[in-house]
Amino acid sequence: MTRRPVVGMVGAGQLARMGWQAAISLDVNLLCLGSAGDAADLAGVQLLEGSARNPHDLRALAERSDVLTFEHELVDLDAIRKLESDGFTVRPSADVLELAVDKFHQRRTLSEQHGVAVPAYAPAPDVAAVVAFAQQSGWPVVLKACSGGYDGRGVWMCADQAAAESALEDALATESVLYVEEAVDLSGEAAIIVARAPSGEIAVHPLVDTRQVDGMCREVVIPARVSDQVAQHAHETAVRLAEQVGLEGLMAVELFLAIDGRVLINELALRTHNTGHLHTEAAAISQFEQHLRSVLDLPLGATRQVVPAAAMVNVVGPADGSDPAERLAAALSVPDAHVHLYGKAARPGRKLGHVTVCAPDYEDALARAREAADKLEGNG
Amino acid sequence: MTRRPVVGMVGAGQLARMGWQAAISLDVNLLCLGSAGDAADLAGVQLLEGSARNPHDLRALAERSDVLTFEHELVDLDAIRKLESDGFTVRPSADVLELAVDKFHQRRTLSEQHGVAVPAYAPAPDVAAVVAFAQQSGWPVVLKACSGGYDGRGVWMCADQAAAESALEDALATESVLYVEEAVDLSGEAAIIVARAPSGEIAVHPLVDTRQVDGMCREVVIPARVSDQVAQHAHETAVRLAEQVGLEGLMAVELFLAIDGRVLINELALRTHNTGHLHTEAAAISQFEQHLRSVLDLPLGATRQVVPAAAMVNVVGPADGSDPAERLAAALSVPDAHVHLYGKAARPGRKLGHVTVCAPDYEDALARAREAADKLEGNG
Repeated sequence: MTRRPVVGMVGAGQLARMGWQAAISLDVNLLCLGSAGDAADLAGVQLLEGSARNPHDLRALAERSDVLTFEHELVDLDAIRKLESDGFTVRPSADVLELAVDKFHQRRTLSEQHGVAVPAYAPAPDVAAVVAFAQQSGWPVVLKACSGGYDGRGVWMCADQAAAESALEDALATESVLYVEEAVDLSGEAAIIVARAPSGEIAVHPLVDTRQVDGMCREVVIPARVSDQVAQHAHETAVRLAEQVGLEGLMAVELFLAIDGRVLINELALRTHNTGHLHTEAAAISQFEQHLRSVLDLPLGATRQVVPAAAMVNVVGPADGSDPAERLAAALSVPDAHVHLYGKAARPGRKLGHVTVCAPDYEDALARAREAADKLEGNG
Repeated sequence: MTRRPVVGMVGAGQLARMGWQAAISLDVNLLCLGSAGDAADLAGVQLLEGSARNPHDLRALAERSDVLTFEHELVDLDAIRKLESDGFTVRPSADVLELAVDKFHQRRTLSEQHGVAVPAYAPAPDVAAVVAFAQQSGWPVVLKACSGGYDGRGVWMCADQAAAESALEDALATESVLYVEEAVDLSGEAAIIVARAPSGEIAVHPLVDTRQVDGMCREVVIPARVSDQVAQHAHETAVRLAEQVGLEGLMAVELFLAIDGRVLINELALRTHNTGHLHTEAAAISQFEQHLRSVLDLPLGATRQVVPAAAMVNVVGPADGSDPAERLAAALSVPDAHVHLYGKAARPGRKLGHVTVCAPDYEDALARAREAADKLEGNG
């Protein structure tokens, strides 16, 4: 039997779990760096127990893989750089991955090197710097950790100097380096997924509307309710960035749609992303299969939307600590609910799954996806 | 964490492999009875090594499962009956499964008990019985093994008495019991998948066109090109049979469309089926998820067709023994090709995967699915 390619995935959470479902169809081997009991491990992926912060574990993964890729960005970047210089294939490259690892570096690279619009920002070494920035932009401002934040962690909305002082103290406790940026008045948020293969082939998934609650992506809907001009701009920006940074792999581009009409990049993720989950049912190819194709330099799949509308709602562990999996039957009673549970232990506030519904229109899809997610969370 | 339900699956081949992909989304545990290296084992399903012919292995599977179900019908039916009478949950029940295990029993039960049209048939204990049957139906006739046949094995088309004698000799060598039936002049073949939950809920997937080559299903296309009357009849027959036999689980109904206008049941399978693979992309729910829902008594999913047309073409091991997986990149260059490879060792004539293409029309879908399958088989 021909040896199957091995994709080495840094991380073994729900993104790797869904990646594994896609890998099974293509008969591609996935080897994940993570811990026993992680979401992908429970789905039977090959697991290499270890840490993305440990250079030895990363090297062990690389040695057993044809290509190294990522499910998250909480990695030892120097170790990744060393693997690359030692001849291992890393996609995206360490230089590209750094955009996701260090958000301040991302802001600066996007604005200064690629001429892309981002929120106004500045380093925030101390409270004086924050106050100086706020004199330009006005309060409130947002303080953000340069690295390590996700799902609302590492982000502080500061109404005034006192709030900024408190945030800087918090950050000091966790040894985080912060930067400050304007609090953009939003009319909405959107996101777009772009894949680029080493061959240079590029494919862009349709733009989606996203809605955050408490800093965590909670709802995603397609088609995005934006003007053709905004959609076109988002698409072109995604393609241009993929080309300019030399992306090999998959990238999610989160956009702020400002009330003043600006379209700003909120954040880049160099991996599959929560805002792309609904493409599994709503587009001709899932982001997970596209990710595998792009890092293996296989032809990319067609990305067009194949249903009139779709909505995805995350399922979060309810406050009473109960497990949404207990209420699977109730959720499946909602017509057309595609339920994805990640197998993770239930904890209040933890992302445990999502529901996607495809429907004739946006409102119908969203109403039913919410209904099924509510049932799983015990509110239905 | 809530304990997840465990579905005990007799068999660990490609159907179980695709069932596992569906089980991951629902966070349902699948425990398969089979051998190391089987298609589902390679996808990381939990495996119980053993044989479907061994009562001890079947009992070990039942003891670790909440419900027992099947990926194939090459089982020790008496052992299944004993498990059922000992209180284990078996879906479909042994009585229903017997329809698939013993094809002569199936013919007789369908025609005599359920009043369903089947090809004319008779027992074939010896050549005299075959000759007597042929005097009624005319030559050629078809001799079939009552049990154990699949993908063209256990079927002999007999043009005359000499051919029948030879087939009976073959059968004697393998201790097969045969029956004889008319060779129906076909205008086409079709198939339909029906699921029924213990709750009594029934859902029927859309009718598909099927095309056999050398007794093996090779191509499946949707929508089926039959009259509304035939489609309606097929749907009603599937529902009526599911109710009358008390189906719990999923059943595939293969139909002969005779040139003389008769719609006859060719065969029932009490499991997911090759003719249902394209629903993964073409319908609102896959047969694999529907199977899990039905045996777990969960609400069934909507089955409607969600694309204008789709075609599935099987990928079979080429004569030169080469492995289609080597040519994955070529196949993925075909627009919209959804490639499913089963991870099995390549052998000439062995089913190793399939390709599904969704497209605006039937011809386009079939042409592209054939193109991708040809590329995988090295003919493209």
